[in-house]
Amino acid sequence: MTGDRSGAPAPPPGGTGNGPAVSRQEFDALFDRVRTWGRWTPADRGAWNRVTPEHVRRATALVRSGTAVPLGRAWNTTPGPDNSRPALHYMSDLGDLEPPEPATHKDFIAVDYHGKAVSHLDALSHAAYRGQLYDGRAARECIDAGGARFGAVSALGPLVTKGVLLDLPAVLGCDWLEPGRAVHAEDLVSAERALGVTIGEGDAVLLRSGSVRRRREVGVWDPGTASAGCHVDAVPLLAERGIALLGGDGDSDVRPSPVDGVHSPVHALALVAMGVPLLDNLDLEALSVAAAETGRYAFLLVVAPLDIPGGTGSPVDPVAVL
Amino acid sequence: MTGDRSGAPAPPPGGTGNGPAVSRQEFDALFDRVRTWGRWTPADRGAWNRVTPEHVRRATALVRSGTAVPLGRAWNTTPGPDNSRPALHYMSDLGDLEPPEPATHKDFIAVDYHGKAVSHLDALSHAAYRGQLYDGRAARECIDAGGARFGAVSALGPLVTKGVLLDLPAVLGCDWLEPGRAVHAEDLVSAERALGVTIGEGDAVLLRSGSVRRRREVGVWDPGTASAGCHVDAVPLLAERGIALLGGDGDSDVRPSPVDGVHSPVHALALVAMGVPLLDNLDLEALSVAAAETGRYAFLLVVAPLDIPGGTGSPVDPVAVL
Amino acid sequence: MTGDRSGAPAPPPGGTGNGPAVSRQEFDALFDRVRTWGRWTPADRGAWNRVTPEHVRRATALVRSGTAVPLGRAWNTTPGPDNSRPALHYMSDLGDLEPPEPATHKDFIAVDYHGKAVSHLDALSHAAYRGQLYDGRAARECIDAGGARFGAVSALGPLVTKGVLLDLPAVLGCDWLEPGRAVHAEDLVSAERALGVTIGEGDAVLLRSGSVRRRREVGVWDPGTASAGCHVDAVPLLAERGIALLGGDGDSDVRPSPVDGVHSPVHALALVAMGVPLLDNLDLEALSVAAAETGRYAFLLVVAPLDIPGGTGSPVDPVAVL
Amino acid sequence: MTGDRSGAPAPPPGGTGNGPAVSRQEFDALFDRVRTWGRWTPADRGAWNRVTPEHVRRATALVRSGTAVPLGRAWNTTPGPDNSRPALHYMSDLGDLEPPEPATHKDFIAVDYHGKAVSHLDALSHAAYRGQLYDGRAARECIDAGGARFGAVSALGPLVTKGVLLDLPAVLGCDWLEPGRAVHAEDLVSAERALGVTIGEGDAVLLRSGSVRRRREVGVWDPGTASAGCHVDAVPLLAERGIALLGGDGDSDVRPSPVDGVHSPVHALALVAMGVPLLDNLDLEALSVAAAETGRYAFLLVVAPLDIPGGTGSPVDPVAVL
Repeated sequence: MTGDRSGAPAPPPGGTGNGPAVSRQEFDALFDRVRTWGRWTPADRGAWNRVTPEHVRRATALVRSGTAVPLGRAWNTTPGPDNSRPALHYMSDLGDLEPPEPATHKDFIAVDYHGKAVSHLDALSHAAYRGQLYDGRAARECIDAGGARFGAVSALGPLVTKGVLLDLPAVLGCDWLEPGRAVHAEDLVSAERALGVTIGEGDAVLLRSGSVRRRREVGVWDPGTASAGCHVDAVPLLAERGIALLGGDGDSDVRPSPVDGVHSPVHALALVAMGVPLLDNLDLEALSVAAAETGRYAFLLVVAPLDIPGGTGSPVDPVAVL
Repeated sequence: MTGDRSGAPAPPPGGTGNGPAVSRQEFDALFDRVRTWGRWTPADRGAWNRVTPEHVRRATALVRSGTAVPLGRAWNTTPGPDNSRPALHYMSDLGDLEPPEPATHKDFIAVDYHGKAVSHLDALSHAAYRGQLYDGRAARECIDAGGARFGAVSALGPLVTKGVLLDLPAVLGCDWLEPGRAVHAEDLVSAERALGVTIGEGDAVLLRSGSVRRRREVGVWDPGTASAGCHVDAVPLLAERGIALLGGDGDSDVRPSPVDGVHSPVHALALVAMGVPLLDNLDLEALSVAAAETGRYAFLLVVAPLDIPGGTGSPVDPVAVL
Repeated sequence: MTGDRSGAPAPPPGGTGNGPAVSRQEFDALFDRVRTWGRWTPADRGAWNRVTPEHVRRATALVRSGTAVPLGRAWNTTPGPDNSRPALHYMSDLGDLEPPEPATHKDFIAVDYHGKAVSHLDALSHAAYRGQLYDGRAARECIDAGGARFGAVSALGPLVTKGVLLDLPAVLGCDWLEPGRAVHAEDLVSAERALGVTIGEGDAVLLRSGSVRRRREVGVWDPGTASAGCHVDAVPLLAERGIALLGGDGDSDVRPSPVDGVHSPVHALALVAMGVPLLDNLDLEALSVAAAETGRYAFLLVVAPLDIPGGTGSPVDPVAVL
Repeated sequence: MTGDRSGAPAPPPGGTGNGPAVSRQEFDALFDRVRTWGRWTPADRGAWNRVTPEHVRRATALVRSGTAVPLGRAWNTTPGPDNSRPALHYMSDLGDLEPPEPATHKDFIAVDYHGKAVSHLDALSHAAYRGQLYDGRAARECIDAGGARFGAVSALGPLVTKGVLLDLPAVLGCDWLEPGRAVHAEDLVSAERALGVTIGEGDAVLLRSGSVRRRREVGVWDPGTASAGCHVDAVPLLAERGIALLGGDGDSDVRPSPVDGVHSPVHALALVAMGVPLLDNLDLEALSVAAAETGRYAFLLVVAPLDIPGGTGSPVDPVAVL
């Protein structure tokens, strides 16, 4: 990413490398380093325990313009390379089933929301590493066909905290990060400096790669094959800062994974080691515009998952209030 | 409802009457009186257009303790008298479908959310009166099997505003309103006075009848047959105040309906005449406790519906921040 | 069941006893006695391997009147004591989505079909006893969130064979068997004699208890608590005869179970020990009438499950041709 | 299709033309010509009323080898050009929800079965032409969000009749008909002659184009854009013969449609004018092999739709018995 004294053309700011490669041993050391097991009660609220009422008050005090920006993508019922399990939407009453007056119109929705198409929250039960969920719980004992008995989304409740938008294309002066471009700790630090924000304890970090804009302008691709996202070397910084939530317009992991034998290493570190829920597949385009206009990259963020007992997450449409 | 000089015991404060009866002609006059058609652009955001950035700022400034209280009920997959179309929740991956590491757990959810069991937002397309949606649009031209082209939930976006809890059992000194008990304008005014709040323009009014507590303590019943809620005579007051949202732990309508030939008159008035979305089937028990403890019945409210194009509403789990 | 010389009133012919009680040790001995593991290739077609082309030919030769009788119940979207997971049926196109001509009407169906409400076929993967599926396969290795790799309904294909209706109320001279009434080997033998049929190798045995008639006339109850069905002492006879399929208007098990610690002992014996698929929750009322009219209790039976890879069964609407 | 005296190479036998073009006026005349409205009671069993018990007896008498061949495709949960609304299949119990013994494994299935991916039966309510269903019923009065009150699949019941396989690639000496190739009356007559069968009253005609083989060997395509199927000029022959059912490995219509302004003209003629249900998207490969081996292209066919009240059809897995 740095300049080049040799005179050779600089790589494009949106970059493409997903490296450096990380061995399984290095990854496991990293996992142990950022682990927060045993720290909180209730354990399955994980890092959301960091968000104290004092933190909520300070987050609401960030509001200046009073603009509320939704961060969720539209419900997508059309299959595609990034939507292998399309959501369903059927009308269950067109005003012709129940007697009027009034006539009522109703609908049925269904979704297998994990994946790359639906804006959703990953609860701590979504991932296990070496057979263990967050806090060292045995996945096999906690999860069955009825759902998760530990780490369910119902254990999280709503999150009201300070959100920080790290708008990387804005910082790097490009339209979007190319799929496969890793985001490193130094990118996060540069972004903080350039955007005038500081990631602090209990904050929600939202990473914009510009993937939604790229999809609209270039066309759809399979983000499971290539997507911009965090390299694991960015995670210790996030751990030190004590974040409560990590999210973005991808699923936080750079793909292909740079870690040998671990397809979603940031998921493993955030959800399993650190107890940090993830917010996947947001649409941060409107927020990017609003933040640029106001010059404010820190704001009040509200995430309100559905209260699904046993659920491993929830579709959500988070709200940023600037 | 009135006192009794004869010495006979006074009726319980939670009452039971759903009257007075209202003729269809009287109802239609009321409909015309509170109608706001033609007032806003976009029309299908209806009364949410009242919530300006200034209003958002003032709402966030209400936060004192920093306590965030979820207002949604748990996802309910069990049929019952109040749940004739139970929600679905299936695990789609138990860590055995995609290769580890990490193992991932996933689920599928489905719901026909209108009814009496799911906390949900009614968008303006949910109801039509005399063939018309809000703003006078012909329901037949706006709604088909693909959903609503006018008044969809996707036209609403998120709501961030001042919420006002009218905790009627707290005011009346009872555990809950009996099913079938109508709430009148004078009840709302008494509640404002007793709780130290004022319903203003752009506010979200949440009516607590105590039905969730009653369900827990007495057992389940069919709220389609009998439920506490607003009599239509309470609506002009809400219209004058210029509310943005009406919600509660029922569906806002007293049942049986006091209006001849109109099964859900408050739905017709709020959604169709006034453009006021409704928030049905909340769980306001925790909010009631928190409000009583702090003595604050006005707070920051955030409602974040899923962005379902064509949807007539959305399951939601609104958040009150005190 | 037999008469009484003492002059005391005879018990009603529909009886009610689910006994005699059977110990777990006796049950395990019975399991070993009727076990057919290792006998067939492919193993997961189980007893359907008994139905040879010769058998098919003889079954089609049974047809006399040419009357085709459906044996399935109607799709039931209404919750009830016997329908805790109601089926779904939504219109996905009302002629308003795709451009005419012609206009097309479409629908979406969904069902969690095991249980007491849906006529369905149990494939061999539906049940495991002591951790093992039919043929001794370890359930844990064969079944995961993606479905069954052994014993799936797709391994069965269609069944065309001789069906035998054992119409017990017709034999006993009652309207129906009372819920909880066990059917014993001697009941089967009496029925064969009275109805002029013989259960032979490769046959499908359909037991009518009259439960559908009882439901219609008396009202609905929870068949999980009490239902007429086979006592395990009827199973050795069925094993000796070499049946291919066992079905009925219940789920073949008498409930409450007479076997200590085994809630569905006939399921365990048929599916796991004998490799005999089960046909649950049929409606045999029309077949009962047609059989009585013609005096023919043996007929051509066709069961055509959906070809669901990994499925543990399928909703079906079997056809009897008399 | 005909020879060429000029010496130019003959067109491939699988052909490609969808013509000749047909005007809307010609189509409407054809519609009136083949119309059977008012002929049957119950009307919405349509041409299935032609299948008398005598016909059933003769069909069962066709069985020679006793081979039962399933004609349905596998449940397809993967999106693709021919599968825009993939079916769902989730395990609802992995032996971990209900207490053993036995352990039980259960699943949930869902499907919007009309389209190009699911083997299914079209009931008469599936299509309307000029606002009318079969028998002249007004579609608008018969069909609403609750389903079809006329022409539902539940009105059909099972079909047991003589099936006739018109294996066109076998007749033409090619592997498959190219997508877009129209099948004409003379193709049907040639096929009858070549295969030694005669289409008679009450028969089910199954047209094999070889599309399933082509999909396997060449790859998937969108059959909505191009598929082999009947030209409307083949329909009068089928009408004269008095068939009960028309089906195939496509959806019976050649696409693109040769009829101006009518996208599915064979659907309109069969379902709406003639009352002939359709059987779409079969897999006739195994039947083709079995028929070639035995030289028998007429057989016993059983179609057993699910009994869905109000349903416009049903997924099915029909069975041919040779």
